[in-house]
Amino acid sequence: MKVGVILSGCGVYDGTEIHEAVLTLLALDRTGAEIVCFAPDMDQAHVVNHLTGQVSPGERRNVLVESARIARGKVRDVVTAQASELDALIFPGGCGAAKNLCDFAMKEADCTLHPEVTRIIRQMHQAKKPIGAICIAPAILSKALGNQGPTLTIGTDTKTAAALERMGAKHEACPVREFIVDEEHKLVTTPAYMLANRISEAAEGIEKLVREVLRLAR
Amino acid sequence: MKVGVILSGCGVYDGTEIHEAVLTLLALDRTGAEIVCFAPDMDQAHVVNHLTGQVSPGERRNVLVESARIARGKVRDVVTAQASELDALIFPGGCGAAKNLCDFAMKEADCTLHPEVTRIIRQMHQAKKPIGAICIAPAILSKALGNQGPTLTIGTDTKTAAALERMGAKHEACPVREFIVDEEHKLVTTPAYMLANRISEAAEGIEKLVREVLRLAR
Repeated sequence: MKVGVILSGCGVYDGTEIHEAVLTLLALDRTGAEIVCFAPDMDQAHVVNHLTGQVSPGERRNVLVESARIARGKVRDVVTAQASELDALIFPGGCGAAKNLCDFAMKEADCTLHPEVTRIIRQMHQAKKPIGAICIAPAILSKALGNQGPTLTIGTDTKTAAALERMGAKHEACPVREFIVDEEHKLVTTPAYMLANRISEAAEGIEKLVREVLRLAR
Repeated sequence: MKVGVILSGCGVYDGTEIHEAVLTLLALDRTGAEIVCFAPDMDQAHVVNHLTGQVSPGERRNVLVESARIARGKVRDVVTAQASELDALIFPGGCGAAKNLCDFAMKEADCTLHPEVTRIIRQMHQAKKPIGAICIAPAILSKALGNQGPTLTIGTDTKTAAALERMGAKHEACPVREFIVDEEHKLVTTPAYMLANRISEAAEGIEKLVREVLRLAR
């Protein structure tokens, strides 16, 4: 199995949620899957000082370059991602998924997706290959595939769930250690740090998500 | 159990190795341990573009602020770390351990340790509380406790091992999925990405290290 992982920076407040990304890589590697990381080559929406939680005025960082920290240097520009080379695709969460891969954090249901993210999602969907999305990343699937009425979860947050439904998704509440599967559209989602208070909670949901994504890829 | 984890930034080439840190947090959390992350409040030795592997000229980042990305905001200045509040201490690896917590990457056996890192290591050692060190981080223990003749591993790299021995340590070769324990000095070390080709290899050694550190803390 060859699985793409789409990163969006490095850090929960302005990039990929680091724990979720590493737990995804670990769960995939333990199955023996080959992993290919991707990220867009673009400036981050902003840089957040993770100690204070405040935006660092004037500071700029590149999503692809920062994603390389999580990927230990091995990350490709998402423009090179092709469904034909992948058996499955997974989006870890973190604010980067909602600020860099799209602008859901700012515009909710009126958000716009990065065009290459839209393209690879629709390619995978047309090829009937599964996609996993963690934490807030199901917002991306709601936007890209909303016209298909996909069933998804972001946990239990009613405001976020309502925004997903305005984009055409059907939201199902889900506890942190579980996942929701949409068999028809081959989508698997888990709340992770939308609900997790501890890394081991996020890990359990992500391990189950990875297993289910790989089952759907077979 | 309350365990301190000393971070040194966020990224293998200029900070904490991200996978090693997250795997340490996961293994600790799965035992139910309380985790407290620490890092020094200082500039990084440099900033490395992890996509190219090149130093970013003129760019500055703070070790404590970047470490907060891994710790999801919850990280304390290492000056506040006290052995009296901790049952054990663990150092993940990455170049930050050898560039920010000390200058072993530049000066090898002639390196100097961050004074607060020296202090907390010696406090823990005097209190007979265990310390774990992953990847290149055993170099720090060699410097701080070299006069005690500690037994350590950094894997199989003979040049690095020789530098540790020049500081007073006894080096034992160790495969990636295993660890070395010095029962007398309560030190546990594992090679992780000094040898690992896959995250699951690093994970196995780190899980075993965490279990052994907690056993020694009982």
